[in-house]
Amino acid sequence: MDFKTLLQKEFIILDGAMGTMLQKKGMPLGAVPETMCLEHPEWLLDIHKQYITASSDIIYTNTFGANSYKTKNCGYTVEQLISAAVGLAKQAVTELGTDTLVGLDVGPIGQLLEPTGTLSFEDAYELFAQQVRAGVAAGADLVAIETMTDLYEMKAALLAVKENCTLPVVCTMTFEQTGRTFTGCAVSAMALTLEGLGADAIGINCSLGPKELAPLIEELRQWTTLPIIAKPNAGLPDPNSDSYDITPAEFANNMAQLAKLGVKILGGCCGTNPNYITELKQGLQGYTYNKPNVQIPAAVCSASKVVPINRVRIIGERINPTGKKLFKEALKNQDLDYILTQGLEQCQAGADILDVNVGLPEIDEQKMMVKVLKALQGVTDTPLQIDSSSPAVLTAALKVYNGKPIVNSVNGDDEVLDTVLPVVKKYGAAVVGLTLDKRGILKTAQERFEIAKKIVDRAISYGIRKEDVYIDCLTLTASAEQQAVMETLKAVRMVKENLGVKIVLGVSNISFGLPARELINQTFLTLAMGAGLDLPIINPNVTSMVAAIRAYSLLSCTDKNATEFVSLYGGIASPTPKTDPTQNQMEL
Amino acid sequence: MDFKTLLQKEFIILDGAMGTMLQKKGMPLGAVPETMCLEHPEWLLDIHKQYITASSDIIYTNTFGANSYKTKNCGYTVEQLISAAVGLAKQAVTELGTDTLVGLDVGPIGQLLEPTGTLSFEDAYELFAQQVRAGVAAGADLVAIETMTDLYEMKAALLAVKENCTLPVVCTMTFEQTGRTFTGCAVSAMALTLEGLGADAIGINCSLGPKELAPLIEELRQWTTLPIIAKPNAGLPDPNSDSYDITPAEFANNMAQLAKLGVKILGGCCGTNPNYITELKQGLQGYTYNKPNVQIPAAVCSASKVVPINRVRIIGERINPTGKKLFKEALKNQDLDYILTQGLEQCQAGADILDVNVGLPEIDEQKMMVKVLKALQGVTDTPLQIDSSSPAVLTAALKVYNGKPIVNSVNGDDEVLDTVLPVVKKYGAAVVGLTLDKRGILKTAQERFEIAKKIVDRAISYGIRKEDVYIDCLTLTASAEQQAVMETLKAVRMVKENLGVKIVLGVSNISFGLPARELINQTFLTLAMGAGLDLPIINPNVTSMVAAIRAYSLLSCTDKNATEFVSLYGGIASPTPKTDPTQNQMEL
Ligand SMILES: [Zn+2]
Ligand SMILES: [Zn+2]
Ligand SMILES: [Zn+2]
Repeated sequence: MDFKTLLQKEFIILDGAMGTMLQKKGMPLGAVPETMCLEHPEWLLDIHKQYITASSDIIYTNTFGANSYKTKNCGYTVEQLISAAVGLAKQAVTELGTDTLVGLDVGPIGQLLEPTGTLSFEDAYELFAQQVRAGVAAGADLVAIETMTDLYEMKAALLAVKENCTLPVVCTMTFEQTGRTFTGCAVSAMALTLEGLGADAIGINCSLGPKELAPLIEELRQWTTLPIIAKPNAGLPDPNSDSYDITPAEFANNMAQLAKLGVKILGGCCGTNPNYITELKQGLQGYTYNKPNVQIPAAVCSASKVVPINRVRIIGERINPTGKKLFKEALKNQDLDYILTQGLEQCQAGADILDVNVGLPEIDEQKMMVKVLKALQGVTDTPLQIDSSSPAVLTAALKVYNGKPIVNSVNGDDEVLDTVLPVVKKYGAAVVGLTLDKRGILKTAQERFEIAKKIVDRAISYGIRKEDVYIDCLTLTASAEQQAVMETLKAVRMVKENLGVKIVLGVSNISFGLPARELINQTFLTLAMGAGLDLPIINPNVTSMVAAIRAYSLLSCTDKNATEFVSLYGGIASPTPKTDPTQNQMEL
Repeated sequence: MDFKTLLQKEFIILDGAMGTMLQKKGMPLGAVPETMCLEHPEWLLDIHKQYITASSDIIYTNTFGANSYKTKNCGYTVEQLISAAVGLAKQAVTELGTDTLVGLDVGPIGQLLEPTGTLSFEDAYELFAQQVRAGVAAGADLVAIETMTDLYEMKAALLAVKENCTLPVVCTMTFEQTGRTFTGCAVSAMALTLEGLGADAIGINCSLGPKELAPLIEELRQWTTLPIIAKPNAGLPDPNSDSYDITPAEFANNMAQLAKLGVKILGGCCGTNPNYITELKQGLQGYTYNKPNVQIPAAVCSASKVVPINRVRIIGERINPTGKKLFKEALKNQDLDYILTQGLEQCQAGADILDVNVGLPEIDEQKMMVKVLKALQGVTDTPLQIDSSSPAVLTAALKVYNGKPIVNSVNGDDEVLDTVLPVVKKYGAAVVGLTLDKRGILKTAQERFEIAKKIVDRAISYGIRKEDVYIDCLTLTASAEQQAVMETLKAVRMVKENLGVKIVLGVSNISFGLPARELINQTFLTLAMGAGLDLPIINPNVTSMVAAIRAYSLLSCTDKNATEFVSLYGGIASPTPKTDPTQNQMEL
């Protein structure tokens, strides 16, 4: 039996709590739970066997905190702890003669990551990688990352799994009733990010009971095509007895409701025991897996903010040294404050996404990109677009980005596509495809459309969803290539209508070398939105640009009932709007 | 033989000068030439016979000035003069036994029309109608209106012919080397107007020699599908001898060049005699009629200004009382100054065409419309759009309009179409078709498209060119019908792409009841231009609207090399007014 085969079952049953079981066995207060594997192996054997008997398809090893930070003073190495824990779980399975899978349990490190804490993303990654390598060596069947509240830490762990073994990996995070984790991660952001990074199943564990999980599961099923995991506590803790408030029967009943909402993989966390798992299994009799039939929308995110590309979204262009003396200076002087200010000003002015370009011949672009990305995601929840032509820079950036970013860009050149698209796929990013190739920029809309089609097809062949490919039909300057302006708009329309992908376009370039640039930019932006532009790359601090987008949102009915527009522009709607279109007069 | 049959000949030969021939015969200085028909009928018989013998297919009667103004003191009535003149021409034909046609010659009245002179359009019409009726009674085969310099007078004459007989009518005006008539009429404006009014052939006579006519003929052939007439003088007058400067052979040679440019009907004016006609005829041996193969573009005009709808053209909306207290007051008080100012301000701000709506329940709309049109065309050469729902008002307005106007509007209702379209056809106007009918305004683009198609088809069935039908897809207010906004733009695109007609759209209505109306209007205007709008009806005094159109012209390459844009905005930092009243919210 392997995880993939197991997925063919109607439902997959996990085990229940480990910590409370160990306490009942007599684990001393203050002990490091993972040391029990070496000091009381019979306890672990018994607990695992109880869960196997209770019908768990997967049991988690007693390795939740088996990282070198939490266990540094316990007298055993991470390798010793994990080897013992995995060995006991496997022994239990062997002795009972079942095909239960052993999941290497990986919990939070117990230390906050930067920027809130001091642990770097890279160090977190190394701690997790050590656990993973040990688990693989000991023979775990899969990895189960759980109880995470920081998406960044989850990413470090998941990447450590993906880059250090080929085992399946299931990921669950812990949410509060607000629908956010302790660090503010949204269900949707978790889903977009973890599915993008290649998790095999995702879900929610601990903190809440099955009843409280229902709305979170409903949200989650809108944002993932993966099997969904629910591993809640036995209800909420009773404030008097400090024990959990629901019985195994109630738990089973509530879990069946979650199964109806689309959960495939079910188990218990704090307060549960083998009875809960037995009842859970029995409670699912007669239910069938309600596979969510969902089309995940085009969207990008930071850990706490998802930006669906379901209306015109502004990509701020200002973090870019091209033609900007002060910005170049800031890069050379490593003046992060200057760069962060450029970012924050754009966010306040209405940027939905920030483009980040730090390419300058004089500096180490890769180091600077990583530095700037980390700093930016420490001060803003606006999703970022990583803008570089260097695959090495893109890879380093994608590694440290916390969420689902955009890669800007690939083009129709085979070498570029076959170098960058696998990286985009690995890190679950969206990608901008420029409609040019080795031949340069092509004159006609038809030629650019053909490159767009090639890029989309190639991306799909690498397993990237079409929704994650954004096409840039290229803005040439009207002063140099006036005929090309309408050709670009034509290409936008062709690509949008025929390929059904999102459209990105740098706008400001259009007016280079002409007077009244704002007017030209605003007009071109509006025309491009009318042709299908979703993601204008603009300077959001130019109010006429943002104003045009607000007006377009109103006119295109994405700003329903003009609510946003009216709140921004402060008018009071006339009580009796004139509806006679044969009269076109403006009231005086 | 009739005129239609005559047109099957390769070329049609007219006669030459009459006045100089009569002088040679001995006509006393200061005599009214038309009286010679009664006092020296043998002179006329001889002159006509000479031209017939010289191979004229059509001879003109000696009635050039036979109107009751010019002949009031000559002792004969108009009817007597015309009866005699037509009789003599017909007698000459009969005696020679040819099938030469007799054209009733109609020249200018000899008095300037309003607003330059004092003669009203209506009085001019009556003078011409009298001549026409007399000519018909006397048996003329066709009417030849010639030597006109005022398009308005030409229109009065042509209308008098069309409304008082069924004879063919050929029209020629007299141009200076500038390409304009003495009153400023352009060749293109003459062509658009006279072809629209139903002339059977149009062209140029007198003032210049055949050589000087060539560029004018070249212009004319771009603007008419009618047979073209050239009846030039025998060259330019010699300043010393006061005689004309080219010989019959030179004349014939130059006329053959005009034939090559597409002239079908050829004759001579001042300074020519039967020798010139004989040589002309011989000179055309071996030539074939070079029928101009031309698609007349969509265009409207006043007498001196043609506005082709080959780029976005602004229709000024401000001459309209709807919702305007001051304008209503002006109408009630017959305050023409106020209305003219509204017109002139719009022209100065960039209006290409002015909409004229003077409908108000309290006033006589028809009288006011005629008054306002006459006054407006006295102060501006901007073409006008006649805006009324009353067929009577439209008819009266079309009658007095000097040029080719737009009728605003018809709709898909059969009764409206079958009432108004014949009037539009008769007066050679363009017409706006609203995509609504008795059912009201329909929700979907498809339904509006179907009405548009019905209107276009019906117009064509009435002989109106498709180029003269402009479709209005109707702007609803975004505040009341938000979903309808994109449906309107979709309809614009459908109609433009599938019917290939010009698109007109009132813009200002879109923002009724919302704040930041300028911003919404500008954005909607830009989107509509992108969808195919040719004729926005706007307030051109709102600079952001005109600015958007200028920018669109640049971006859509109609403003080649941005010449116009740079000349307008070069050196101006930002021509767009602040469209964002909440700029403070966006300040940092
Ligand atoms: Zn728990
Ligand atoms: Zn004459
Ligand atoms: Zn003449």
